[in-house]
Amino acid sequence: MHIYKANLLFTKDSTSFTVIPDGYVAVDSGTIAGVYPRLPDELSGIPVTDYGNKLLIPAMIDVHVHAPQYRNIGIAMDLELLPWLNNYTFPEESKYADTAYAERMYRRFVRDLWRVGTMRTIAFATVHKDSTRLLMRLFEQAGMGALVGKVDMDRNCPVSLRETVADAIRDNEALIAEYAAPDALVRPIITPRFVPSCTPELLQACGELARKHNLPVQSHLSENRNEIAWVHELEPASLHYGDAYRRYGLFGATPTVMAHCVWTAGDELRMMRDNQVMVAHCPTSNFNLASGMAPIRTFLNEGVPVGLGSDISGGHDLSIFKVMVYAIQVSKMQYCQNHHLPFLTLPEAFWIATKSAGRLFGKVGSLEAGYDFDALVIDDSELNHDNYSLLHRLERFIYLGDDRHIVHRFCRGEQIAEPPIA
Amino acid sequence: MHIYKANLLFTKDSTSFTVIPDGYVAVDSGTIAGVYPRLPDELSGIPVTDYGNKLLIPAMIDVHVHAPQYRNIGIAMDLELLPWLNNYTFPEESKYADTAYAERMYRRFVRDLWRVGTMRTIAFATVHKDSTRLLMRLFEQAGMGALVGKVDMDRNCPVSLRETVADAIRDNEALIAEYAAPDALVRPIITPRFVPSCTPELLQACGELARKHNLPVQSHLSENRNEIAWVHELEPASLHYGDAYRRYGLFGATPTVMAHCVWTAGDELRMMRDNQVMVAHCPTSNFNLASGMAPIRTFLNEGVPVGLGSDISGGHDLSIFKVMVYAIQVSKMQYCQNHHLPFLTLPEAFWIATKSAGRLFGKVGSLEAGYDFDALVIDDSELNHDNYSLLHRLERFIYLGDDRHIVHRFCRGEQIAEPPIA
Repeated sequence: MHIYKANLLFTKDSTSFTVIPDGYVAVDSGTIAGVYPRLPDELSGIPVTDYGNKLLIPAMIDVHVHAPQYRNIGIAMDLELLPWLNNYTFPEESKYADTAYAERMYRRFVRDLWRVGTMRTIAFATVHKDSTRLLMRLFEQAGMGALVGKVDMDRNCPVSLRETVADAIRDNEALIAEYAAPDALVRPIITPRFVPSCTPELLQACGELARKHNLPVQSHLSENRNEIAWVHELEPASLHYGDAYRRYGLFGATPTVMAHCVWTAGDELRMMRDNQVMVAHCPTSNFNLASGMAPIRTFLNEGVPVGLGSDISGGHDLSIFKVMVYAIQVSKMQYCQNHHLPFLTLPEAFWIATKSAGRLFGKVGSLEAGYDFDALVIDDSELNHDNYSLLHRLERFIYLGDDRHIVHRFCRGEQIAEPPIA
Repeated sequence: MHIYKANLLFTKDSTSFTVIPDGYVAVDSGTIAGVYPRLPDELSGIPVTDYGNKLLIPAMIDVHVHAPQYRNIGIAMDLELLPWLNNYTFPEESKYADTAYAERMYRRFVRDLWRVGTMRTIAFATVHKDSTRLLMRLFEQAGMGALVGKVDMDRNCPVSLRETVADAIRDNEALIAEYAAPDALVRPIITPRFVPSCTPELLQACGELARKHNLPVQSHLSENRNEIAWVHELEPASLHYGDAYRRYGLFGATPTVMAHCVWTAGDELRMMRDNQVMVAHCPTSNFNLASGMAPIRTFLNEGVPVGLGSDISGGHDLSIFKVMVYAIQVSKMQYCQNHHLPFLTLPEAFWIATKSAGRLFGKVGSLEAGYDFDALVIDDSELNHDNYSLLHRLERFIYLGDDRHIVHRFCRGEQIAEPPIA
C-alpha cells in the first residue's frame, strides 16, 4: 500500500468536480483503496508521497487515434478528406510494412502520449501484423494501457494495404493468442477500418472473431455526408450506417467504440443507446476535415456512452485536455444555433474524457475506491500566479497548460517513466 | 546594415507562401533593405547572422486583446457573456485603479506576448489613465510595438469604471500629448468600449478626438445577437450597429479596427468595405462566448480588411498561431454548412495574421523591402524529425508548436529580450 497526498480533483459524475484540498489517495496493488480528506488512523504508518500544493487528477484516455498517422500530424490541413487519404494517409500507412520505420515512428507516438498525460489509448495500427505487435510491445514496455487494433480492410484501398479475409483473420488470431490475458494492460481490439473498405465477408469474419474471443470492436461511423451516402450504396440492405455494423455483429455485441458519429441521429442513435455503443467524439478532427459538429449534448441526453479522441492525424492535437476544450467549443456553437442544446460544462467535458471513456478499460478514469490508480500530478505554479481557486487552477491548466506542467504520471498504480524514442 | 540568413517564409499576398530556402534578409535602421535567395555582391562584407536550418518568418500581430483581462485567461468559461462580464471582467478591470496591481499583471501580459511571438499588439487597457500609461511604458521598455487604448465608457457599467465625458477626454489628451510622435512604436488608439457603454456625447467626443489628432480607433461590433438588439434600442436613428459608430466619426474617418463582426452583413459589411474598417477576427473568443462564427470568407471576398485577435480573456489562447488554426477551423465549419464559402487555406490565415493585420502599424507583417523587420526565428528541430518540406515544417509549427520553438524575436530591427516580470 502507498499513499499520495495532493489537491485531488475528479468527476464522479458529469454534474460537478469533486475537489479534495490536501487529500489522500491510498493505492494497493494498482487499485485505489480509498480517497480521504484526512488520513484515517488505520492508515497511519503507511508511506506517504506528499505533492504539496500540486493538483492530482485522473490521467487522460484517448479513445480514437491512428498511431501510424503520427508522422502526418499538423500537415496537409488544406486538403479535403479524399485527397488527404490518398496522398498522405494511405501512402504513410503503407510504410508500416517496414518494422524499422514503424518502430521509429511508434516510439515517438508512445513517448508523446506519455508527454500529454494520456495513459490509456484505443489505437488503430495498420493492416500489418508485425508492426501492430510492435506497437503493442511498446505500450507494454512503457507500462501504459492500450487497446490496439490491427486494421482490417479488403476493398477501396491501395493494393499495398489490401488483404484477403483469410489473411486478416489469421493475423488477428496470431496477435490475439499472444495477448490473451483479459486483464492485461495491452489488449487487441477488432478493427475493421470502416464499411467502405471492408467487404461483407470481412465484416462478418470480424464480428465472429470479436464474439469468439469476447474482444472489443472499434471502427468509424457517420463521419461525413459523402461517406454515409457511399455506405448506403454499398450496403443497401442496412437501415443505416450503424445497422451495417450491427448486421455483422460489430455494433455492441461486444464492447464497441465508433469514431465521429457526426451525423448520427434517429434510429442509428437509438441503436447506439440500446447497444451501449460508445461514441469517440473527435472535435478537432471534425473541424480540420470539415466533417461537421457531432451532437454531443444529444448523446448525453439520450444515454449514449461518450469518450474523447484525438484522431491523429485528422485531429492536430494529441492532448486530450485540448480536445476537451474543443468539445466544449463545438457544443457552444451548437448552443448558439439552438438554445435547447445547453453547451458542455467543464465537469461534463472532464467526465467524458475520464470516467465515461474509461469504462472500456474496466474501472478506470476516476479517483474512487476500486478504480485503477491512473493519475497525473500537475505543477501549475507558473499558471497559479494570483491566488486562484482549485477549480480555476484546473480550468487554467486545461485551457492554457501543456506537458511542461505534468510532472508525474501513473498507470494502474505504477509511476510511468518517459518512454525512450530510440 | 545587418544581414540574417535562414529559411524564409512569408506571404506577399493571400494566395501562397513565398519560400526562400537559405535566404538572406538585409536590414537597415530597422527596415528591410532587401530579401535575396543568394547574397548580392554589393552586400558582401556586411555582417551576417546565420540561423542555419531554422525558419525565419514575420512576427505575429494581435489586433484585439484586453490587457487587463489577462489574469482571467482560462477561467469561468462555463459562464455566458453577461454574468462573465459582471462577475469577472468588470471587477477585474476595477482593480486597475491600483497601478501596483496593474504593473504586476501588465508585466506578465507583455512578457507572455513576447513568449508567443506577438511583436505588435492593439490593446484595450482600462478607463484608468495611470495604468494605461504604465502599459504603454512597458511596451516601450520591451521594444514591442503597440496601439494602446485607454477605455472610454460612461453608461451601463459599474460606477467604479464610469467616467464623465470631460474626464475621459482630459485623460486621453494627457496620454496623447505624451505619446505624440506619429512614428513611435507605441501610440494611443481612441477606444470607446462599445456603443452600449458609451453615451452619444462620449461617442461624439471620441470621434472628434480621433480626427483632431489623426489617431486610430478601436471598438467592438456585432459580436452577438442580444448586443445588436440592444444597440438598436439605444441608437434608433442608426441604420445598423456600424452606422452608430459612423455617425460619430468612429467608422473609418481615421484607421479603424472593429472586434468580432460575427453578425455583420448587408449594408454594415459594405460600409466596412467602403470605409476600409478592419475586422479583428477573434475565433477563439467567438467559440468560448458562444457568439457565433464570423463570415471570414465573405470579408475576404468583399475586400474588407481583416486581422486576427486573441481577445483575451474571451479568447483563451494568447498565441496568434493558435488563433490562425481556429480561424481556419471556423471557416471549415462554414464551408461544411455552405460549400460556396471555401475554407481558409494556411497561406490565407498567415497573410491575415501578418501582412493584412500589419497595415495598422505602417509597413509591417511581411519580409519585403521597405517593411519593418519584425520577425521570429523558429527552431523546429524537435518537430522536424522526418525530412519534412519547409512548408510542412511551418504548418507543423503553427499547428503543434509553442513558445519553446521561438528562439529569437525582432521588432523594427531590434532583437527583443524577454521582458522582466518584476
